[in-house]
Amino acid sequence: MSNLCVTDLPAGFRYAARAAGIKKSGKPDLALIVADQPAVCSGTFTTNKVVAAPVILTRERIRSGLCQAILVNSGNANACTGDRGLADAQRCAVLTARALGIDEQLVAVCSTGVIGVPLPMGRFEEHVPALAGELSNAGADEVARAMMTTDAFPKVAVQRFTSGGRECRIFGVAKGAGMIHPNMATMLAFVLTDATLPGPSAGLLLRRAVARTFNRITVDRDTSTNDTVLLLASGAVGAPPLVAESPDGEAFAAALEDVLQTLAKLIVRDGEGATKLVRIQVEGAASEADALAVARSVATSALVKTAFFGADANWGRIIAAAGYAGVEIDPDRVRIRFDDVPMVEGGLGLGAEQEVKATAVLKQAEFTVTVELGLGAGSAWYYTSDLNYEYVRINADYRS
Amino acid sequence: MSNLCVTDLPAGFRYAARAAGIKKSGKPDLALIVADQPAVCSGTFTTNKVVAAPVILTRERIRSGLCQAILVNSGNANACTGDRGLADAQRCAVLTARALGIDEQLVAVCSTGVIGVPLPMGRFEEHVPALAGELSNAGADEVARAMMTTDAFPKVAVQRFTSGGRECRIFGVAKGAGMIHPNMATMLAFVLTDATLPGPSAGLLLRRAVARTFNRITVDRDTSTNDTVLLLASGAVGAPPLVAESPDGEAFAAALEDVLQTLAKLIVRDGEGATKLVRIQVEGAASEADALAVARSVATSALVKTAFFGADANWGRIIAAAGYAGVEIDPDRVRIRFDDVPMVEGGLGLGAEQEVKATAVLKQAEFTVTVELGLGAGSAWYYTSDLNYEYVRINADYRS
Repeated sequence: MSNLCVTDLPAGFRYAARAAGIKKSGKPDLALIVADQPAVCSGTFTTNKVVAAPVILTRERIRSGLCQAILVNSGNANACTGDRGLADAQRCAVLTARALGIDEQLVAVCSTGVIGVPLPMGRFEEHVPALAGELSNAGADEVARAMMTTDAFPKVAVQRFTSGGRECRIFGVAKGAGMIHPNMATMLAFVLTDATLPGPSAGLLLRRAVARTFNRITVDRDTSTNDTVLLLASGAVGAPPLVAESPDGEAFAAALEDVLQTLAKLIVRDGEGATKLVRIQVEGAASEADALAVARSVATSALVKTAFFGADANWGRIIAAAGYAGVEIDPDRVRIRFDDVPMVEGGLGLGAEQEVKATAVLKQAEFTVTVELGLGAGSAWYYTSDLNYEYVRINADYRS
Repeated sequence: MSNLCVTDLPAGFRYAARAAGIKKSGKPDLALIVADQPAVCSGTFTTNKVVAAPVILTRERIRSGLCQAILVNSGNANACTGDRGLADAQRCAVLTARALGIDEQLVAVCSTGVIGVPLPMGRFEEHVPALAGELSNAGADEVARAMMTTDAFPKVAVQRFTSGGRECRIFGVAKGAGMIHPNMATMLAFVLTDATLPGPSAGLLLRRAVARTFNRITVDRDTSTNDTVLLLASGAVGAPPLVAESPDGEAFAAALEDVLQTLAKLIVRDGEGATKLVRIQVEGAASEADALAVARSVATSALVKTAFFGADANWGRIIAAAGYAGVEIDPDRVRIRFDDVPMVEGGLGLGAEQEVKATAVLKQAEFTVTVELGLGAGSAWYYTSDLNYEYVRINADYRS
C-alpha cells in the first residue's frame, strides 16, 4: 500500500472515501475529491462509440472549463443503462452538489464496475452526504483504494515542479488493470495540481501527456466505455498562470508526463495476470507515426505477448508483427535487441548463443525490446504485458 | 482422417507426398501437386511487409497466369532467411522442374514451419526427384497430411458444379491452425478445378471468394509472412471457358466459396487450443464495410473470446467491442442474440432469465452471435474461436 505524505499533495484539495455497499465484497467503493474553490479542469475520454452515462454527463459538465468535485464509485459502471443511467448519473451530481453546497454543474461523476446493471441509488442517497462530512487533506490513499475493481494494488504518483518561482505539486490517482474491461469498465485517472493553469494550456498539455502515456499502453487491446482522465488545477499556491510554450510550461509538462507515465506503467504492471512489464521501443522509422504503428502492432500481438510469458526470444513473431503494422518496412534492415542483447541484424537471426543471452533478458520482470527499422529518425514506444493463463482465467471466469 | 474419392477430385491433377526429414518428428513434410498440362493460375498472398522467400518467388512466377506444379513443404518456412532463402526457393523450383521435365517458370513453391532457419536443401535434393516418381491421382489425402504443422487434422473440401453442361469439380486443401504463427508460418490453401477458366475470371473470382472466406476468420489477429492461396484450373473436362458474370460463372463462384468456406471454418475449428467455432453475424449496419468492421472488432476482442471460453453471455464486452470498431453505432438501437436467444434490446440487457438460456447456447461447440445495429441494410460475418489456456500453452511453450 502506498503512503502518501500530505506535504506531497497539491494544496487546495480534500478527499474522502467509504464502503457504501456498491461492491458485494464490502470494500471501499465510493470516493469524493473536492477542490476548495472551482478548479480549472480539462479531460480526455474514451473514443468508444458506446459511452457510459457518467462519461456523457462529465464530458458535458467540464466544457465550462471548471470543476470543483469528482464523485467516483467502483463496483458498477453505469454503462449500457439507457435513460435511467443518465438520470442516475445526474442524481449523483445533485446529491454531491447539495452535500457540498456548490453548483451542480461543478460536479463530475465517474463510475467503473459491472456493465448493464442500474446504479444502486439508495447507496448513493445514504453515503454521499456522509462522504462530504469526512473530507480531509489526508484521505487520498483511501480514494485510490475505493477506485479499485480488479486492480491488485492502488495506483498513485506525485511530482513537484517550479512555476513562477513557486514550488507546485502534482498528484495523480488511477484505477485500471488492463486497458479495459467492458465489465469492469476500465481506466480512470484524476490529476490534481496546485499550479495556476489557464484552461487552454490545461487542455493542450493534458492531451499531449495522455498521448505519450496512457495512449501507449496495452494489456488486451480492448477500449472501454468509461475511460476518463481529468486534470484539475487549483491555483492554490498562487503562482502566476502557466503558459504552455514557456520554461515553466515545459517544467509542468515534464512533471505531468512523469506522473501519467508512472500511473500508466502501474496499470500495465497490474494488467490482468501480467507477470512482465515490457517496453517496445521502435527506432529508425520513417516518421514518429510509423514508429508508433509498429510499436503498437508488436505490443498488441497475442503471439508476441505469449512468447514473453514463455521467455521465448521469438524474434520471428516480432518481425512479423512489425510487418503487418501497415507502414513501410524493409526486412533486410531490421535490427532487434532485448535490452542490450542483439538478436537480429539485417533481418536475420544472430544464432543460438545470442538466443541464450536474450532468453535470460526475457526471464526478467521488466525489459525493453528495441526494434530498429533503419529507415529514418522516427521513434516511439509502447508498454505491454505478457499474455498468460491468468489473463484467461480472470476473463473467462469473471461473471460465471 | 479424410478419405477422398478419386471421383470427387478434378481431372488433370496428380499428387505425391513423403516424409523427407524436414520435420524432426519424421512425419510427412514434402508434397507435390502437378497438373498434366500448364494450368491457368491465380493467387492471393499475405499482406505482411515481411514476406517469406517462397512467397516472393511464387508471386512472381504466377504473373504469367500459368502454373503446372506446386512443391510444398512443412517444418521450415524459409522466412527471414535473406538472399540464401531466395536462392534456396529457386533451387527447389529447379529441382521440381527437372524432375518433371517442365519449365522452371511453371513451378510454385510454398513453405511453412520455423522462421529464420535455412531450408535443409540436402533433403530437397534427395526427395524431390523421388516425389516426382510417385505421382498419382490418389495421393491428395497424403498431400493434406504433409502440409500440416501445428494442425490437429488435415483440411480438405470438394464440390461439384456444372459449366457448359459439363460436370466440373473443385478440390481444396489447406493448412493452418490459427490465422497465423509467424513461427509455423500460417495458412496455405491450394484449390484445383477441372473447369476451363480464363485468367482474368480466375483472378476476379478467387479474390472475391477469399474476401468472403479466408479473410473473415480470425484466431489471434496476427498475419503471417507466408500466407498463400493458389487456384489452378486444368480445363481437363473440356468445358467452354467460364465467364465470371454468367450463370455458369455464378455456379462456379458458389462452389468455390463453399470449398473455401469449408476450409476456412476447419482452420478456425483447429485454431490453437480452440474449443468453439463462433460466427459473428452483424446485421443492419449503415454499409457492408461497417458491418465487416464491427464483425471483425467483436471477433478479435480478447475479452469476447475469453468470455466464449467461459460460456459467459457477456454482452457488455460485445457491445463495447462494437463501439470501438471505428464506425457509426447507436447503442440505443443495438440488439444482440445468441443463436435464437435475444439477450439485448435497445442497448439494454434482457435480464437473468434470458442469460440462463444464452449461457446454454454458449456451452455449445458451435453457435452464432448476431449483432443488429438498426442503422441500415449492411451485413457481414466473421468466424472466430475462443481464447483459452491451451492457446497460451501452445504459444508460450512452442519453441522453449
